[in-house]
Amino acid sequence: MTITLYDLAGAEADRRFSPFCWRTRLALAHKGLPVKTIPWRFTEKERIASSGQGRVPVLVDDGRWIADSWAIAEHLEQAYPDRPSLFGGAAAQALSRFYNNWADGVLNPGLIRLTLLDIWRHVHVKDKEYFRRSREERFGQTLEQVVAGRDERVAAFRQSLAPLRATLQAQPFLGGAAPLYADYIVFGGFQWVRSISDFAVLAADDPVAAWRGRMLGLYDGLAGRAKGYPV
Amino acid sequence: MTITLYDLAGAEADRRFSPFCWRTRLALAHKGLPVKTIPWRFTEKERIASSGQGRVPVLVDDGRWIADSWAIAEHLEQAYPDRPSLFGGAAAQALSRFYNNWADGVLNPGLIRLTLLDIWRHVHVKDKEYFRRSREERFGQTLEQVVAGRDERVAAFRQSLAPLRATLQAQPFLGGAAPLYADYIVFGGFQWVRSISDFAVLAADDPVAAWRGRMLGLYDGLAGRAKGYPV
Repeated sequence: MTITLYDLAGAEADRRFSPFCWRTRLALAHKGLPVKTIPWRFTEKERIASSGQGRVPVLVDDGRWIADSWAIAEHLEQAYPDRPSLFGGAAAQALSRFYNNWADGVLNPGLIRLTLLDIWRHVHVKDKEYFRRSREERFGQTLEQVVAGRDERVAAFRQSLAPLRATLQAQPFLGGAAPLYADYIVFGGFQWVRSISDFAVLAADDPVAAWRGRMLGLYDGLAGRAKGYPV
Repeated sequence: MTITLYDLAGAEADRRFSPFCWRTRLALAHKGLPVKTIPWRFTEKERIASSGQGRVPVLVDDGRWIADSWAIAEHLEQAYPDRPSLFGGAAAQALSRFYNNWADGVLNPGLIRLTLLDIWRHVHVKDKEYFRRSREERFGQTLEQVVAGRDERVAAFRQSLAPLRATLQAQPFLGGAAPLYADYIVFGGFQWVRSISDFAVLAADDPVAAWRGRMLGLYDGLAGRAKGYPV
């Protein structure tokens, strides 16, 4: 049975830029599960209505619709127990939640304030008005105002990565010697930015950048070969 | 063979307030290992010289001196494999590092800027001058200046706990249904503050406070019965 993933795309169908969809893409690769991805745009809510909500990733596995990247990861771990573990055991699964909340609450909000206008530049023409209006409502500022001063603000963003940096100075991946779902959670943010922006969110000599390089190379360069900007 | 722990104490020998020593105290309790704690003050460097450095926790286990709370946890896990696991497996051990770096880089620095003067008030008379001088050098401010405006600043501190809060809304402990070393890492900071300050770093209805209550009750109230202020 084919697994299908509704995957956020930009103006070009092969520009896949959702940080949450990238978590799922890499989770599927980790499990060695082939997937058919379907490019999806923000305003195509009706196409994923069977999932009971309006955001991606949405996975369709054996006729079952599953939304939310964390729920999808739990599903894959449970449905494919004979494949390599995404989490590395029950304790590690529980401990991975904090990474999800740190990425959603610290990392990705930091990244979006540096690159929001770049996202808008890359979304499909039919999404442009929706994206601008919904994001300007959320931030209470224009897209241009949100990213203003990013050359100065990037230093504070990099400082906010201190716990991540210290961890990756001690071991090659968050999961230790090899990547686990926690790595995909966090990497999703960097892949998102790489997909739509040439802005250097990391300094070249940052240990976080070295880890990002390792992540880009996983699974025959799944993330590194995807459409985006050089890092 | 008795395990001995050099444990930071205040003016009263039973006021134990190091966030790092509390990680070790709870790790030992988790393993069910009895320990003899020795009250130690900041300026008693020569007493722990055999550890090759000047800070606590220092564990002496079967004649071997071990410093640094993370190294001690790794030692306990390796030396007592038949006792309950502190980490919950190799993957979970690797994933616990980020908690250590988040606590050391975000949580504890946030807490100290609210309570530094309270620490000074509780240190032993022979430590007072050392503590004030070394901390004022580190912060480039007087102790009084560091904590100034804490009633206003505590809101931003509480906001910085958002990833922790979201995790503890989804599960009772960071380790899942039961506590793991990641819980002790993070809890150490709250126990530190509770030991020397009546300042309310958490709102009473915060899910983090509910988790703190569960942590205080573990192992027959090991942390909750220790000298400190009500929370």
